[in-house]
Amino acid sequence: MLIPVVGLNPTEDESLQVRKLPRASSCEAFFVSSLGEGKSRTIWWQDDHPVMIDQTRLPFSEFDLHCTTVQQVADAITRLQVRGAPAIGVAAAYGVALAARLAREQGTARDEFEARVLAACTQLAKTRPTAVNLSWAIERMRAALAGAGSASPAAITEQLLAEAQRIAAEDERACQSMGELGAPLIADGAGILTHCNAGALATAGIGTATAPIFVSHQQGKRIHVFVDETRPLLQGARLTAWELKRAGVPFTLITDNMAASIMRQGRVQVVFVGADRIAANGDVANKIGTYSVALAARAHGIPFYVVAPLSTLDLRTPHGEAIVIEQRSPDEVRTACGHPLVPDDYPVCNPAFDVTPADYVTAIITERGIAQPPFREQLAALQVAAPRAST
Amino acid sequence: MLIPVVGLNPTEDESLQVRKLPRASSCEAFFVSSLGEGKSRTIWWQDDHPVMIDQTRLPFSEFDLHCTTVQQVADAITRLQVRGAPAIGVAAAYGVALAARLAREQGTARDEFEARVLAACTQLAKTRPTAVNLSWAIERMRAALAGAGSASPAAITEQLLAEAQRIAAEDERACQSMGELGAPLIADGAGILTHCNAGALATAGIGTATAPIFVSHQQGKRIHVFVDETRPLLQGARLTAWELKRAGVPFTLITDNMAASIMRQGRVQVVFVGADRIAANGDVANKIGTYSVALAARAHGIPFYVVAPLSTLDLRTPHGEAIVIEQRSPDEVRTACGHPLVPDDYPVCNPAFDVTPADYVTAIITERGIAQPPFREQLAALQVAAPRAST
Repeated sequence: MLIPVVGLNPTEDESLQVRKLPRASSCEAFFVSSLGEGKSRTIWWQDDHPVMIDQTRLPFSEFDLHCTTVQQVADAITRLQVRGAPAIGVAAAYGVALAARLAREQGTARDEFEARVLAACTQLAKTRPTAVNLSWAIERMRAALAGAGSASPAAITEQLLAEAQRIAAEDERACQSMGELGAPLIADGAGILTHCNAGALATAGIGTATAPIFVSHQQGKRIHVFVDETRPLLQGARLTAWELKRAGVPFTLITDNMAASIMRQGRVQVVFVGADRIAANGDVANKIGTYSVALAARAHGIPFYVVAPLSTLDLRTPHGEAIVIEQRSPDEVRTACGHPLVPDDYPVCNPAFDVTPADYVTAIITERGIAQPPFREQLAALQVAAPRAST
Repeated sequence: MLIPVVGLNPTEDESLQVRKLPRASSCEAFFVSSLGEGKSRTIWWQDDHPVMIDQTRLPFSEFDLHCTTVQQVADAITRLQVRGAPAIGVAAAYGVALAARLAREQGTARDEFEARVLAACTQLAKTRPTAVNLSWAIERMRAALAGAGSASPAAITEQLLAEAQRIAAEDERACQSMGELGAPLIADGAGILTHCNAGALATAGIGTATAPIFVSHQQGKRIHVFVDETRPLLQGARLTAWELKRAGVPFTLITDNMAASIMRQGRVQVVFVGADRIAANGDVANKIGTYSVALAARAHGIPFYVVAPLSTLDLRTPHGEAIVIEQRSPDEVRTACGHPLVPDDYPVCNPAFDVTPADYVTAIITERGIAQPPFREQLAALQVAAPRAST
């Protein structure tokens, strides 16, 4: 059944399929299922290709984006139709699996098959520079390919899909684990502030920064979440608020510049944010504006927690200064949801991320434990303990 | 000559008159004139009524809003068609003068004439609660009325218009003075950050926070201004950037959440902001987000200057906690320039202002001198020295 489109900037992309809006009961079930009972996810493999919720159209409409070419997967990542560090790792892994399936179906020879899979890895790795999960997931896919030895394209295709499914399933479990580790940091009655969307939409599970929130809500704690709208792309307003509303978690949407003032009023007891890349010393690259939140939290004595899976940790990057910050189109600042705010010749800058120095981070919550300052040793120990690419 | 309207949310208000877009030369002349040579202003008295640039339509189109009733003036203030603490003081004063003119023309008796002027004072005073200039300007108009004794309605009408014109002229001179006092605080080559619009559009002169910037630019200093867009109403993006572009001052428009990161990169040497009300102890109420900028400036050792005329100073308010903060419509947060960002049932909060504690303020630049901490004595001394309501 087709439903009317009332989304933002609808495109004519043929790969866009309209799906039924969930029934009221399944809206509620979205997060119940994310918490373990069902199958709803931001991104999944359906039949022979990856499908993802097109996040650029939320919150006004819900589309499933069916990707039947590697280029479509790459475009979906670049255009932020799928975004959030863990979710784009899963998307890239599915993209590699899709490349294998397409090459196999065309009956390419073994060498050519491998070359095409590796070309997809290269193509997908270029889509966004800051999130380390992307290259981490692609490395796992490359390792799975290498580990397949002289197997047939059909066998390798199966193995690559299985590896991508494992990455997604591991992410779902990691989210749950971060939620259970982080929930005790939220007191009954707490006000919580979060920035951007490090939620279910950013992962294959219940989110990273939102995981302790959803688990606390499930535990029956009375909580209230202040959601930074997160200009320019408004991931907080469009995505995090949408998730919280569906899950029935009380929230207030605020403009980014209200956060400090809300803290000063004593309405925030704890901050949770995600991460796109964590350097070896604990410096955290996350959505632009995170640093500003960290400064405000520090000024008001509020704990500032980063919640991220170990795949976000990049021990090869010694500190935040070494993290490449993606610069995005100036038009994102000159517009809001595609609507022009200022003339298109106004000079702007548009870094997608900023770096919060480790000194401002109270603790880093991973799926295997909570790292506290000084971070270098604890993060390294956690990563050593983590399972690496399975083959 | 009528020109096509390409503005934001055009209304059908009959009082809106389209005026010619300035020629290129007169664009430049706008600020040259503001600096002393000409007559261009944000708000002025034309023939028998006040006219103002409709700021809700900038930057895409420039309209003169002709107000021929007191209700129109009140609406213009409430709707932010004229905004900025000094400018709304001038608007209210012209509104009172307009009330007198209308009452006189209808030949009302002396008592009824006075009652109608006082009713206009009451009506206009209610439009916005935070900016003290509004009540200050209305107090001056009331004092002028009281000082007129038993004069005829015609004579009083002339005196009230003259008083309103004095308020505007004094504001223009005050802006120039703040610019000259503040300019030495800007080094050649400096990066400057400002929030909201405390510019020419907010005053009857060259602005408050922008005054040192425009004077420095006139002096030939190489400067670069980072303009916070200032959600939700985007006064920085729509108004300050427009002013700087017209004046030829190099600038970069940023989202509010980028300010701290830009500071951390060493690109900002000084912050100038305006004020809507300054308490006796130096606490400053200004556009929401100012406090966040102050925290970031402190964290990076950057001086944070408040620039405001003494009419903004409210010695009867002991400290910031006692300042009434205007709460505006939630729809302003749910939209950007009238374009919906989220469903209209999402809970939001929308305080128009926040309070920056005096401790974060490096100095307060007024038209009669620069106050430094501790502010209480210096502010009181400056206000005693200032001319009060002239009658």
